[in-house]
Amino acid sequence: MSKNYILQDENSVYFECGYSCDNEIFLHIRGRNFLLTDSRYAIEARNLAHDTEVIEIKQPIIKEARLLLRKFGVKSLVFDPYDFSYAQFEELSKFIHINFIPRPFFSKKKRMIKSQKEIEILKQAAIFGAKSFDQFAKFVSENGLSLSEKELFFHACNILKHDGELGLSFEPIIALNQNAAKAHALPSSDRLRSGDLLLLDAGVKFKRYCSDRTRTACFTDSVEFSKRQSFKTQKQNEIYQIVKEAQNLAIKAVKPGVLARDVDNAAREFITKCGYKKEFFHSTGHGVGIDIHEFPNINSKSEVVLKEGMVFSVEPGIYLEGEFGVRIEDVVVVTADGCEIL
Amino acid sequence: MSKNYILQDENSVYFECGYSCDNEIFLHIRGRNFLLTDSRYAIEARNLAHDTEVIEIKQPIIKEARLLLRKFGVKSLVFDPYDFSYAQFEELSKFIHINFIPRPFFSKKKRMIKSQKEIEILKQAAIFGAKSFDQFAKFVSENGLSLSEKELFFHACNILKHDGELGLSFEPIIALNQNAAKAHALPSSDRLRSGDLLLLDAGVKFKRYCSDRTRTACFTDSVEFSKRQSFKTQKQNEIYQIVKEAQNLAIKAVKPGVLARDVDNAAREFITKCGYKKEFFHSTGHGVGIDIHEFPNINSKSEVVLKEGMVFSVEPGIYLEGEFGVRIEDVVVVTADGCEIL
Repeated sequence: MSKNYILQDENSVYFECGYSCDNEIFLHIRGRNFLLTDSRYAIEARNLAHDTEVIEIKQPIIKEARLLLRKFGVKSLVFDPYDFSYAQFEELSKFIHINFIPRPFFSKKKRMIKSQKEIEILKQAAIFGAKSFDQFAKFVSENGLSLSEKELFFHACNILKHDGELGLSFEPIIALNQNAAKAHALPSSDRLRSGDLLLLDAGVKFKRYCSDRTRTACFTDSVEFSKRQSFKTQKQNEIYQIVKEAQNLAIKAVKPGVLARDVDNAAREFITKCGYKKEFFHSTGHGVGIDIHEFPNINSKSEVVLKEGMVFSVEPGIYLEGEFGVRIEDVVVVTADGCEIL
Repeated sequence: MSKNYILQDENSVYFECGYSCDNEIFLHIRGRNFLLTDSRYAIEARNLAHDTEVIEIKQPIIKEARLLLRKFGVKSLVFDPYDFSYAQFEELSKFIHINFIPRPFFSKKKRMIKSQKEIEILKQAAIFGAKSFDQFAKFVSENGLSLSEKELFFHACNILKHDGELGLSFEPIIALNQNAAKAHALPSSDRLRSGDLLLLDAGVKFKRYCSDRTRTACFTDSVEFSKRQSFKTQKQNEIYQIVKEAQNLAIKAVKPGVLARDVDNAAREFITKCGYKKEFFHSTGHGVGIDIHEFPNINSKSEVVLKEGMVFSVEPGIYLEGEFGVRIEDVVVVTADGCEIL
């Protein structure tokens, strides 16, 4: 994009210049990059931000941005109307004659196709994420019996963080039995018993990039998070096999030139055919990158044409209210002739 | 406030009705309260939100809010322009003739004077917070030697969370020696050595209310976070005593009827007199409640008149770049004739 634009979202700014902090505005003006920040961050910003002039602000940051726009005689400026509060936009646009062009999510859209370097980092993040699942399985096998969801959540967070070296992509979801039927379960006081169905949806942040993975497993005396599972009831086994096959079909559908909705449909049609249409009530996936939710969306309406280098989750699920839920999720990268699971 | 108003910030909505989630809009219309949320949260919201009608949305939430406003023929509506993005406000205000009245931070302003019940919860939060400092001191005394700031940060977070029972008010600041001179230090790879100056600024969330405390201590073979400290160098001891006395003077200045700026001045004048005016570059305190930063601000300009039930931090500091920094912080509640440290 050669147009002038403004950003303040931390991940968007990090993508532009390799640095971000919690008080900043990034401006791209006539091909030059500027990062406005305050004295707490200016030194670090100068060291880390590439191809960017760092300006240490002396006045409120929005006002400084406005002065810079005026100094350069900017006539039009692209902004993301979700990136600025109403008050901030009012402050930015007063006393100034600029054509402000609203472009929702323009930064995320720029980030849809990942570079080779980004894919390498995402692979590393996925490796750390998968390792965390194995470590958590070991922990649960040794110490999990009778722990509450809240306690399991606490330990899962610690394991994911690798002694503070990694961040979390999001608050992990750890849910037992009927709690797994809620797509956004909060950890409860329910305690882990032998024979329980256990759903874990979790990811780490490595070099700012996210991993994302979900496994549904059966806890007997121990647990492991491979896709080969044997549950307590026939119904659980049946539903599990349907979700697993739906995910498999969706992943097989991924290749350059295919529409995102066709990937969604591959999973959805199979689940529908098996009689659980209503019980799969969310989309099949979402882009993954610096943000945990990026583009493309993999849903029944998305007409985005898949291209090499796109990275997204494939995560169908079936949720039987009051009984249990199953979801299986991996992140894939689109390759020249299909996709690769990260 | 008897006027109609709209809120979406989670803490503001929780204050109104005792419930909040991550997809909600709260409307106060003609004396009635409405909470709009989606099917994931509606059941829980009905159980927990008091004096509030819960509406399960079928369309995008902003659109549902607009329809409700139209249904009630609302003519004017107070909103916080920092609470809605530009895009959300555009969506809310289109196709509708309402006088939108911007009132920045009106919810936080309502919360400035705490009820007896809130003060009790804040006291409990402060007790848990202080207990965490003691537990962390014990941990550092036994295991801290040679740990990096990052590792200390990780362990501090875990101790503060009390096995997942409590949240964090904010990401704790843990900084050694010259890193303590940065007001917003990020944890580094520097390792703890005997004789180090160690600054810890941390708080917990108990029943959604925040604690906030800072101590600066000397680590020899062990560490404890009382205000009586003996440091390695004379300069550290001198600066420490100045900050301690400045905090003492500011706390003594707190009582109903006094201006917030006079509390700030009590600390600032003393530090200035001692020759460190420039090295105390932030305000003396901030309100504490459901949000970690509320009103009143305790700074050199604030003309807010202190009243019984206000709760805020008192946290002067002196920062010597490249050398070290000292900050001491407690949260106080204004009482009938002075204040009480929580």
